[in-house]
Amino acid sequence: MAQKSLLASRKFIKPSFSYLIEKKREGGEFTEDEIRYIVDSILDKEMPEFQMAALAMSIYFQGMSAQETAIFAEEMMLSGEVIDLSKITKPKIAKYSTGGVGDKTTLVLAPLAAAAGVVMPCMNGIDENFVISTLDKLSAVPKMKMDMGLKQFVEQLTGVGCAIIQQHPEIAPVDGILYELRQNTATIPSLPLITGSVLAKKLSEGAEGLVIDVKWGNGSYIRDVEQAKQLARSITRVGRSMKRRCVALVTDMNQPLGDTVGTALELQEAIQLLKGEGPEDLQELVLKLGMEIVRLAGVAGSTLSAKQTVQRHLKDGTALEKLKDMISAQGGDTSVIDDPEKFPKAKHIRKLPAPKRGYVHTINAGMIARGVHMLATSKNGKLDPAVGVSEIKKVGTQVKQGEPLMMIHYNDESKLESSLDYLRTAYRLAPKRPNPPELVVERVA
Amino acid sequence: MAQKSLLASRKFIKPSFSYLIEKKREGGEFTEDEIRYIVDSILDKEMPEFQMAALAMSIYFQGMSAQETAIFAEEMMLSGEVIDLSKITKPKIAKYSTGGVGDKTTLVLAPLAAAAGVVMPCMNGIDENFVISTLDKLSAVPKMKMDMGLKQFVEQLTGVGCAIIQQHPEIAPVDGILYELRQNTATIPSLPLITGSVLAKKLSEGAEGLVIDVKWGNGSYIRDVEQAKQLARSITRVGRSMKRRCVALVTDMNQPLGDTVGTALELQEAIQLLKGEGPEDLQELVLKLGMEIVRLAGVAGSTLSAKQTVQRHLKDGTALEKLKDMISAQGGDTSVIDDPEKFPKAKHIRKLPAPKRGYVHTINAGMIARGVHMLATSKNGKLDPAVGVSEIKKVGTQVKQGEPLMMIHYNDESKLESSLDYLRTAYRLAPKRPNPPELVVERVA
Repeated sequence: MAQKSLLASRKFIKPSFSYLIEKKREGGEFTEDEIRYIVDSILDKEMPEFQMAALAMSIYFQGMSAQETAIFAEEMMLSGEVIDLSKITKPKIAKYSTGGVGDKTTLVLAPLAAAAGVVMPCMNGIDENFVISTLDKLSAVPKMKMDMGLKQFVEQLTGVGCAIIQQHPEIAPVDGILYELRQNTATIPSLPLITGSVLAKKLSEGAEGLVIDVKWGNGSYIRDVEQAKQLARSITRVGRSMKRRCVALVTDMNQPLGDTVGTALELQEAIQLLKGEGPEDLQELVLKLGMEIVRLAGVAGSTLSAKQTVQRHLKDGTALEKLKDMISAQGGDTSVIDDPEKFPKAKHIRKLPAPKRGYVHTINAGMIARGVHMLATSKNGKLDPAVGVSEIKKVGTQVKQGEPLMMIHYNDESKLESSLDYLRTAYRLAPKRPNPPELVVERVA
Repeated sequence: MAQKSLLASRKFIKPSFSYLIEKKREGGEFTEDEIRYIVDSILDKEMPEFQMAALAMSIYFQGMSAQETAIFAEEMMLSGEVIDLSKITKPKIAKYSTGGVGDKTTLVLAPLAAAAGVVMPCMNGIDENFVISTLDKLSAVPKMKMDMGLKQFVEQLTGVGCAIIQQHPEIAPVDGILYELRQNTATIPSLPLITGSVLAKKLSEGAEGLVIDVKWGNGSYIRDVEQAKQLARSITRVGRSMKRRCVALVTDMNQPLGDTVGTALELQEAIQLLKGEGPEDLQELVLKLGMEIVRLAGVAGSTLSAKQTVQRHLKDGTALEKLKDMISAQGGDTSVIDDPEKFPKAKHIRKLPAPKRGYVHTINAGMIARGVHMLATSKNGKLDPAVGVSEIKKVGTQVKQGEPLMMIHYNDESKLESSLDYLRTAYRLAPKRPNPPELVVERVA
């Protein structure tokens, strides 16, 4: 009897949703029970969308503590399937990027990790802000299959060591519901909501550790470097309190990464990188993120050994071999990897001429993404894999008047002019050489 | 042609709702076009509720300027019927109270104004926070009809000079939609949203001026006197910018007004007041608000003449006569006014004994409202007109142990104990006489 009344007195009495909104509006901290109740109520569709929206906006203004955010992430994770990779004895590390223009590092890092003996599960979503997603890029491979069951996903991770598939609906479903709502209620840029969303999704994939690339700049939804640092600190801190190893790099996204933006063009650039070639900035970023992955996995101990491990797998072709293994396992045609000429080609290629001589002073990566997106989107809403831009002149490059700032690959003549408006606007030339942007601004561990 | 292109260039391009939410989230000021678009979209059910909720919460945190609020009120007013009282040559003044426990002043002021030659339209809603509404009190009159068409409302105002009816659904319908949403999203206490809501509703009733009673304290939803002052200033400022004469009093709601709380009991107290009798605090408030009404209407010029006008109509019975006229016009049985014995009586009357001797130090009016509400609400959700409390000992009164703090009129024995919990909790006795609360804290004109 005493036992029972003790339990009864500890029972959680469900509050009204209005009360919970008001509590957060006033800056209160939610208890574990309250957060579980909120997440459960979203999952069960018991909390109406308008109350979810008011709650999200209250959280936008009042924030959540690290502890609230950790419970929130954990509960969102537990709202769906959590992949069990415990039967795989190898270390398991996930990688997450906030998304950037020309960012093809996942296409390189997943096979690279696998080659180095680190299992890397990758579930990706479709990015917003006109950024071409990793899935879009991979779909330039004929027959490539990215909607995969969870069982098959685990099998491929066991066999190949990496898999890049689309976000599975059974993974963190509450995050899916909340994310869609946030997109339409101006509540995306909330530190605790982003942190919770990232950790709920990535930790559901079964990894023991997480390497995060937080991008800041005109090609990221995070425009301010301080906000990026805060997010990096927030995700690593909350991730650690969820008993996962986490390291984050804050990196530049004030110009496209590498020399290409576009579906097949970016995949080809990724193949170059897997051969240890390609543009300098991408090589540097792949090296730095790759080193974090192998060190976090415990595959390499020292910085030097991590560097050597990454470079060896790029040089000796084992990383590229893993890309082919992965593509094969997902039903794709690997012949395009060996013979990039087989990738779809655009009918027209023309230059974007420099309007005057000078140095590339700034590039608005977001504008380039918009320009390419406009040019590549066909009537059915799909991206034309052949369309994109290449040979992008990066910040600090000297150009003569009329020299190409980039080469534009396109099929639909009628879209060219509007696309050019974006691409032209993206460039600012100046008489003096600017300081090159710092690629990795901060490391948070 | 030139004319046309000029118009075209001034055309409002509808923004996305997300953009509007984000703009306010960032503290931006809406344009007239944007506010009109928001109000129209709510009316047409084009803006989903979850976006309305996010917008309301953004406004809660970021506010709206006086100009935004005036446009918002105007557009909400224009979203429905605006009553045209221009054919009535007499001055037309509306009265609005934020609501309080035991507040029966509208029942007195409407006939009093009419007696003094001031037309007073009153559309009332059902108050929240367990406060018994003016409509509830009037419904203690047998056969009284308060759902009236707008045409009949205008006719009664023309003939009698006052009418108290329930909020008509065609009046400011957007306010109705928004208010319901705000109740469930913790966005009621927003200064600009309250201001917009009050002005949209009250100015739709066709008055040229508005007397506002902003209550602060434990029996009001405004707990802080500074907030009440801010609201008074906000409504009067915005109301003036809408070209209406406005005056507001900030008044005490830290104990019930008068000596009764309950449906028929309060109506009987109102009748006393209309005879120039009744509790002091209510007499004072009726006098002060009444003076504002007749001065704003221009019926009385000086303070002295305003006071004399109010007192004369209470003393000579003309105000009480107007109450009967109004009740007759609305189908009610006026015999209860002449013979209050005809009002429904409760089966049981018992005292709430003072637990010790001392002075009434504080009364939580909200607790009293809850206690009465619990006791009076029948199974079908309606209020039992006979139930309530009377002879309330007010703050500063000395009591002996066991002496009644109030008399409780009830019919349902089973509810008494839970009701008593509230009523007892409401009282705090202390050995020293407290300073009496100041009834009128500020006048804002």
